[in-house]
Amino acid sequence: MDLVVQKFGGTSVGNLERIERAAKRVISAVEKGKQVVVVSSAMAGETDGLIELAKRITQFPNEREMDMLLATGEQKAIALFAMTLRKLGYPAVSLCGWQVPIVTDDVHTKARIRKIGVQRLKNLLKEGYIPVVAGFQGVTEDWEITTLGRGGSDTTAVALAAALGADCEIYTDVTGVFTADPRIVPNARKIPYISYEEMLELASLGAKVMQIRSVEFAAKYGVRIHVRSTFVEEEGTWIVPEEEIMEKVAVRGITVDTKESRITVVRVPDRPGIAAKIFKALGEAHIVVDMIVQNVSHEGFTDMSFTVNRNDAPKAEEIVRKVAQDIGAKEVVRDDRVAKVSIVGLGMRSSYGTAAKMFEVLSKNNINIMAISTSEIKISCLIEEKYAELAVRALHEAFVEDGEEIKVETE
Amino acid sequence: MDLVVQKFGGTSVGNLERIERAAKRVISAVEKGKQVVVVSSAMAGETDGLIELAKRITQFPNEREMDMLLATGEQKAIALFAMTLRKLGYPAVSLCGWQVPIVTDDVHTKARIRKIGVQRLKNLLKEGYIPVVAGFQGVTEDWEITTLGRGGSDTTAVALAAALGADCEIYTDVTGVFTADPRIVPNARKIPYISYEEMLELASLGAKVMQIRSVEFAAKYGVRIHVRSTFVEEEGTWIVPEEEIMEKVAVRGITVDTKESRITVVRVPDRPGIAAKIFKALGEAHIVVDMIVQNVSHEGFTDMSFTVNRNDAPKAEEIVRKVAQDIGAKEVVRDDRVAKVSIVGLGMRSSYGTAAKMFEVLSKNNINIMAISTSEIKISCLIEEKYAELAVRALHEAFVEDGEEIKVETE
Repeated sequence: MDLVVQKFGGTSVGNLERIERAAKRVISAVEKGKQVVVVSSAMAGETDGLIELAKRITQFPNEREMDMLLATGEQKAIALFAMTLRKLGYPAVSLCGWQVPIVTDDVHTKARIRKIGVQRLKNLLKEGYIPVVAGFQGVTEDWEITTLGRGGSDTTAVALAAALGADCEIYTDVTGVFTADPRIVPNARKIPYISYEEMLELASLGAKVMQIRSVEFAAKYGVRIHVRSTFVEEEGTWIVPEEEIMEKVAVRGITVDTKESRITVVRVPDRPGIAAKIFKALGEAHIVVDMIVQNVSHEGFTDMSFTVNRNDAPKAEEIVRKVAQDIGAKEVVRDDRVAKVSIVGLGMRSSYGTAAKMFEVLSKNNINIMAISTSEIKISCLIEEKYAELAVRALHEAFVEDGEEIKVETE
Repeated sequence: MDLVVQKFGGTSVGNLERIERAAKRVISAVEKGKQVVVVSSAMAGETDGLIELAKRITQFPNEREMDMLLATGEQKAIALFAMTLRKLGYPAVSLCGWQVPIVTDDVHTKARIRKIGVQRLKNLLKEGYIPVVAGFQGVTEDWEITTLGRGGSDTTAVALAAALGADCEIYTDVTGVFTADPRIVPNARKIPYISYEEMLELASLGAKVMQIRSVEFAAKYGVRIHVRSTFVEEEGTWIVPEEEIMEKVAVRGITVDTKESRITVVRVPDRPGIAAKIFKALGEAHIVVDMIVQNVSHEGFTDMSFTVNRNDAPKAEEIVRKVAQDIGAKEVVRDDRVAKVSIVGLGMRSSYGTAAKMFEVLSKNNINIMAISTSEIKISCLIEEKYAELAVRALHEAFVEDGEEIKVETE
């Protein structure tokens, strides 16, 4: 019998009416002859409310107790979900993470799944029950409650699908993954099939649809994910192994990230060990550096730029200023008004000229490129923030609308 | 080292400020050299809110799922309680029922405790932690979450105290158990020591302080309970074995219950089996009958009266009307405006004339007695509801204020 894990996010279970709508999606699959395991997030707002409560006690709540607190959000949601399924005539049984069990390591608030017991789920399915599993939460070998970090319900769903050999449906408030943010690019199209690797790049570069770790998990275990809307009945986006995607388009999607700042250290003496000094200091302050650019040296001096999350920028600037003095740099300049536009696609591996075309499109629109970073399947350009939307639209037109038609076939 | 279980009710943990106040009561005991195990109820209003949510889904939510839902209330409270203790500098660890474990039978929504594992609690105490245990909840042998029914946190506390050989402090919003409801009798006094049996009678007769089952539990295992206020620093009421109370006063306390109705079946043929017919029909409808009075027979006919909970009265009347037709009774009369006043005291066992004195006091105040029921240590009289407060005040004056002084000594 076909087995599917259906995961519903916080907005999809945001109130009792929505839970009923989600329950009907489950029932619709059951009526088509499928066996369903439901994974539910906490009701929208619930987790934030609990965090706020804890923060009112202390700025740094004990993380074990935080997990104890936050786990109540999903527990409440699964009980209500199971009650709703039962009211509609379908026997359902809710399960907390520890009841499955979903065993994790003991890193509270960001635990990683170690193993999943499937016997109880299999028994329930065999007896005709719909198991409704709490997302986001697990249990250590010592019976301590853990949580998997923000968006962890996606990981729960993918991990359960992997353990059960099932497909995974992620129900959310959008109809799938798009070639660009439809709020910026009205012509953006839903992507029918995308590879794990492409999805990972898109997620890292600002696409909100899926938690990154859950995609990594899916890639590792080959779980096919179907991202789709709770509220609209239509096919969404399938996230699948690369081999299943016959046609590798050069550019699958375009993203923009306006949450970074650029910091430039001007006229740095070009000696070995200088870069190490700067980035070691940032690393010690737990600041993640994204793009790094070092210009060609002139007369023994160079300029060095890098980007960090905008929230970290003031602290990063302060740290770098101190280092700059030590190493005899001229000055430190911070620019918060930058944006990173990226194009992502498997086809880049085998097609030439994609980078050149991207630079050309930006140049034609008089957009200056401040920094470039690339991976095998993506190219990112740092530009002035005010050109962000223009850049995305222009790149979308060039690569998606006027570019080769996106042709995708599955095996 | 002295070990004490401190239980805080819903109003005592009703908001973060109150949780902090409760935490300070714990710390005060710790500072006096005691080891403390905390038991917490859900924050006031939380459980009702969850029940309401479930009832919006369906009038009869699945009881297993109801337990799953309700258990989140205490889990939230214990996490916040432990965070608060930690903020104040005292290492605390919250534990759900299943983590202790508190093992129960599988009667969802009103489970009974079967056994308690104390090893984890003992280890935590040994390591210097304050365990904060969720009241009201347990776990079956099959790892299903159960709850103990309304007021179940008292039972959790008493059961833990029994298992650990500790005393039990019940923190609540009153300063103890009183000789009468102080809102009715301004001269009511706090009772310093009361026996389990007396407390059980008082609780059954309308005193709200303790859940009945928890007192039964305490009696069975000889747990000494100290009922006291979270908000006022003073000795409360000790509920202890009868042997510890040297002076058995005739009347320990006076209660009034205005939640019953009287139903009278008029002119019933006085034949064997008639009473059985009436009360069997009520029993089949799950209606609990309290007082029963049958008058002396006249010319082969008698009148039969009984009281039931006022909520059940319309249904009881309907049922009895049908039976009355079958058995040829003349009519059925329902009276909702009745009150049951009771006096309770161990000393009744060995003192004579207590009943006579009670009837005399009522008669002196022109209060007619409609029915009487007695146990070894209590006498209840059914009267017109309008005289309820007058009766309580008069009985209090006669038995408590003017009566023998309440002299209590412990061994």
